[in-house]
Amino acid sequence: MADQGVKALVFDVFGTVVDWRTSVAAEVDALAAAKGWSLDGAEFAARWRALYQPSMQPVRRGEAPYRRLDDLHRDSLRVVLQEYDVALDSEEELEHLNKVWHRLHPWPDSVPGLTRLKKKFILATMSNGNVSLMVNMAKFAGLPWDTILGSEPAQNFKPKSVVYLTGADWLGLDPSQVLMTAAHNHDLGAARKLGFKTAFILRPTEYGPNQHKDNEAESDWDYITNSMEELADKLGA
Amino acid sequence: MADQGVKALVFDVFGTVVDWRTSVAAEVDALAAAKGWSLDGAEFAARWRALYQPSMQPVRRGEAPYRRLDDLHRDSLRVVLQEYDVALDSEEELEHLNKVWHRLHPWPDSVPGLTRLKKKFILATMSNGNVSLMVNMAKFAGLPWDTILGSEPAQNFKPKSVVYLTGADWLGLDPSQVLMTAAHNHDLGAARKLGFKTAFILRPTEYGPNQHKDNEAESDWDYITNSMEELADKLGA
Repeated sequence: MADQGVKALVFDVFGTVVDWRTSVAAEVDALAAAKGWSLDGAEFAARWRALYQPSMQPVRRGEAPYRRLDDLHRDSLRVVLQEYDVALDSEEELEHLNKVWHRLHPWPDSVPGLTRLKKKFILATMSNGNVSLMVNMAKFAGLPWDTILGSEPAQNFKPKSVVYLTGADWLGLDPSQVLMTAAHNHDLGAARKLGFKTAFILRPTEYGPNQHKDNEAESDWDYITNSMEELADKLGA
Repeated sequence: MADQGVKALVFDVFGTVVDWRTSVAAEVDALAAAKGWSLDGAEFAARWRALYQPSMQPVRRGEAPYRRLDDLHRDSLRVVLQEYDVALDSEEELEHLNKVWHRLHPWPDSVPGLTRLKKKFILATMSNGNVSLMVNMAKFAGLPWDTILGSEPAQNFKPKSVVYLTGADWLGLDPSQVLMTAAHNHDLGAARKLGFKTAFILRPTEYGPNQHKDNEAESDWDYITNSMEELADKLGA
């Protein structure tokens, strides 16, 4: 399949490139064991993540100024700790746990696929994570980004158009030259409306064994794949 | 020598990492030969570069909105072509020549040194070049940046404080954890005033065989070196 004039690939990251759920669950389980807490790390991770979309809504609606995802994550973490009726011993401990999102492990195909794609295309993040989160995660996980785009450059959150459009603009490219890659149909839909090319990567266990959404491509995205390596195959990289 | 708590290195690029003068000169000489122009590529490059600092002044003074260096370069190129009384045949030719700044060659020690430094530190640009210029140059020259910072994120130009400070802020670091690296004393001076660590790399032929400035470190910068590899040595990378 041809690459249709694509010059750059931009990526959703949480769920598409990294497996946030098992990464967060493992650290929470280890912490719970050390603290003597009785809780399930995967449930804790799911609850924390459930507060993710709502936490960005005031910014998207223009009701609050942009805040970094690190800060939204910290607010959400305090809520979840209260719900579980557990507490950390210091702000340093809280900060360390909050930064578990900087220490997420990639899906097994992500680094091999991205390494191949990087030889042919510009690779950038198009995530709602802030720059330092994305940079630290890249160092931790070995993700070979050329640069970080997404929420912080645009001072807003996907699926607001400004986030996608600022990314293409900073790359000096028309949206039609940029391939938005995600495991989430709604993310691809927002990008397609703006003229971006689209690639779906199926991640059937992002939310665990009983995942209820994004279990299939829900539109005729330009590329529909099961892994980053399959995407590299289809793009001739 | 210890790394003094440094987590990230940020780099001036034109002159410090890449040899803009001989790169631009070579393309201009080739173009001149093809067009039958009688001119010296190195002189042309020097003249084009001489318009660089003045072109940014209206933005720094707050008299004009931020414009990308690609756009300032294009304006300056039109001036230089007029001075030489030569013309290109199309806007496409002009655009191609303007983007010679995306195709600059690194000094021989840059890629080996950066590759070592990347294993221990976050590496980012802190250039007045725009994001696409920096990304395309990195792809062309093999520069292993973790991300692009500098003028476009801050919508201003060095040595305005906001450029350096936005970079540290986006990395989630205090300036004291960031090492500004440059072949230009004035750039290091601006960063040091803000609390950044500083590293000087001597580039005695940036402006050719008769270079009149930056021929030595003019202050007690934290690191004073002759190459990127020597900087890696001193930082234990």
